[in-house]
Amino acid sequence: MNNFTLAIHGGSCWIAPAEITPEREKIFYAALDEALTTGFDLLVRGGTALDAAQTAVMYLEDNPLFNAGRGSAFNYNQFHEMDAAIMCGQRGRAGAVANVRNVRNPVALARMVLDKTNNVLLTGQGAEAFGREHNLRFEEDAYFYTEERFQELQRTKRQAPACNTGKGTVGAVALDMFGNMAAATSTGGFPNKNYGRIGDSPIIGSGTYANNRACAVSCTGDGEYFMQAVAAYDVYCLMEYKGLSLREACELVVLDKINNAGGKGGMIAVDTQGNAALVFNCDVMFRASKDARGECQMGILP
Amino acid sequence: MNNFTLAIHGGSCWIAPAEITPEREKIFYAALDEALTTGFDLLVRGGTALDAAQTAVMYLEDNPLFNAGRGSAFNYNQFHEMDAAIMCGQRGRAGAVANVRNVRNPVALARMVLDKTNNVLLTGQGAEAFGREHNLRFEEDAYFYTEERFQELQRTKRQAPACNTGKGTVGAVALDMFGNMAAATSTGGFPNKNYGRIGDSPIIGSGTYANNRACAVSCTGDGEYFMQAVAAYDVYCLMEYKGLSLREACELVVLDKINNAGGKGGMIAVDTQGNAALVFNCDVMFRASKDARGECQMGILP
Repeated sequence: MNNFTLAIHGGSCWIAPAEITPEREKIFYAALDEALTTGFDLLVRGGTALDAAQTAVMYLEDNPLFNAGRGSAFNYNQFHEMDAAIMCGQRGRAGAVANVRNVRNPVALARMVLDKTNNVLLTGQGAEAFGREHNLRFEEDAYFYTEERFQELQRTKRQAPACNTGKGTVGAVALDMFGNMAAATSTGGFPNKNYGRIGDSPIIGSGTYANNRACAVSCTGDGEYFMQAVAAYDVYCLMEYKGLSLREACELVVLDKINNAGGKGGMIAVDTQGNAALVFNCDVMFRASKDARGECQMGILP
Repeated sequence: MNNFTLAIHGGSCWIAPAEITPEREKIFYAALDEALTTGFDLLVRGGTALDAAQTAVMYLEDNPLFNAGRGSAFNYNQFHEMDAAIMCGQRGRAGAVANVRNVRNPVALARMVLDKTNNVLLTGQGAEAFGREHNLRFEEDAYFYTEERFQELQRTKRQAPACNTGKGTVGAVALDMFGNMAAATSTGGFPNKNYGRIGDSPIIGSGTYANNRACAVSCTGDGEYFMQAVAAYDVYCLMEYKGLSLREACELVVLDKINNAGGKGGMIAVDTQGNAALVFNCDVMFRASKDARGECQMGILP
């Protein structure tokens, strides 16, 4: 039997280590474990990497703990604009959406773009209209309301407008037993974001990338740094063109390149052998991975 | 004196060779020549690559012959949604906008994002509001109306909805006498485009990329293929990690990878020595380049 692997993240740098009390830590670990198990069980039963990555991300979107789907940050105008992407490493096909509102699972809409169109990135009301035509599940604004995120917006508004803090994102990468890979990422953006800003999450090559030849990657952190570094595709190129291992490539991108530019964040990635790398350069990254050989990792602090 | 170079394109594949009568050919060549001269003169006078690339693209945006700015294609809803990006190879900073309306020069708005924000990609009404706050020049819908584009929309509507033809784009890449590089791309999208679709032009790493270490690249063609290939950054990685020349890297990406995937289009690029590569795999690419050593190229057909 071939190895198969799932890795997930629930974002990086968006909460101070001191705020993670023993009680909250328990709740976070339980959520990570459930997201991981939900996706990994699919792989065990012969499911595809694409379905496993999407399923794990949908769990994290549905859980209000994380800044994606239900728990999305409030933007400047006090509503939720969400982005997501998913890429199939076998076919090299990707689907993504940006600035969508009231979509319960943005990653499911990204998957529809992948499956049902020749496009890669649809945005705003156009993307929502496409989802409605295909019976995607929508929710009222109240569904996305969480008291904690609302208080976060008020705190952020008292500081600078459109400041770039709170880097919550969720993501998953998978290798299935057929040797196919996939990556998926979803985010609610940062609190008080303005001007229709789009970050790295829905950008193929920056926040999300998968290619059966080498790896699948999902990023989290200061989106602008990951966009300018073309971070996810850089990991692929360092492996494919320079012969670096998955870990070496992820560490070079996150710990050297992005770190030296002043960016904070991290990434999760898997390679063709089912190795997982969970790399970050900040205080916190919610992360977990599991493979068919029994290798298992889970953590929040470094 | 160091070499310096400007290369420009006015899109690929968006017109059949048979439609380029001798009269129209003359008009196209005059426009290419003027765009090239406008940007190149800046470089001669010690201007920056960033300013030269932006100036050349603004000329092409202002010229209704090309699908960007004034000559933008009509979308499905019969208005113009435009995208643009610009990247500075010295600082690694990029600015981009997508789905903006009534902006006379989308590349100038992208430059404002680069200069005046910490963001990379702003979209839609948010991006327009940002432009208005900074006194960007806007135009009424009538400014963007061209009879030819309107007839093109009617023809496209009679075919399939949201079909993916008409790949008009404009772009410029430059190396200045200080050794700095820049890339800029602007597009009106394809006729009858729908659902808030965004192509490769405003995506850093896909349609636009610049890095003083190796090259500056601007793409044109089937956007979705260039996005999934992360085409512009792939050229950089093939040079930086694998030691390919500029021409070898561009040809591998356009003539092998994108061509084999079924995509049509091309790219213009410059390297640190001021060499220019103008590579495409289709019937038509409007293109020109000029450097300080007197090398000059201009063409439409292969």
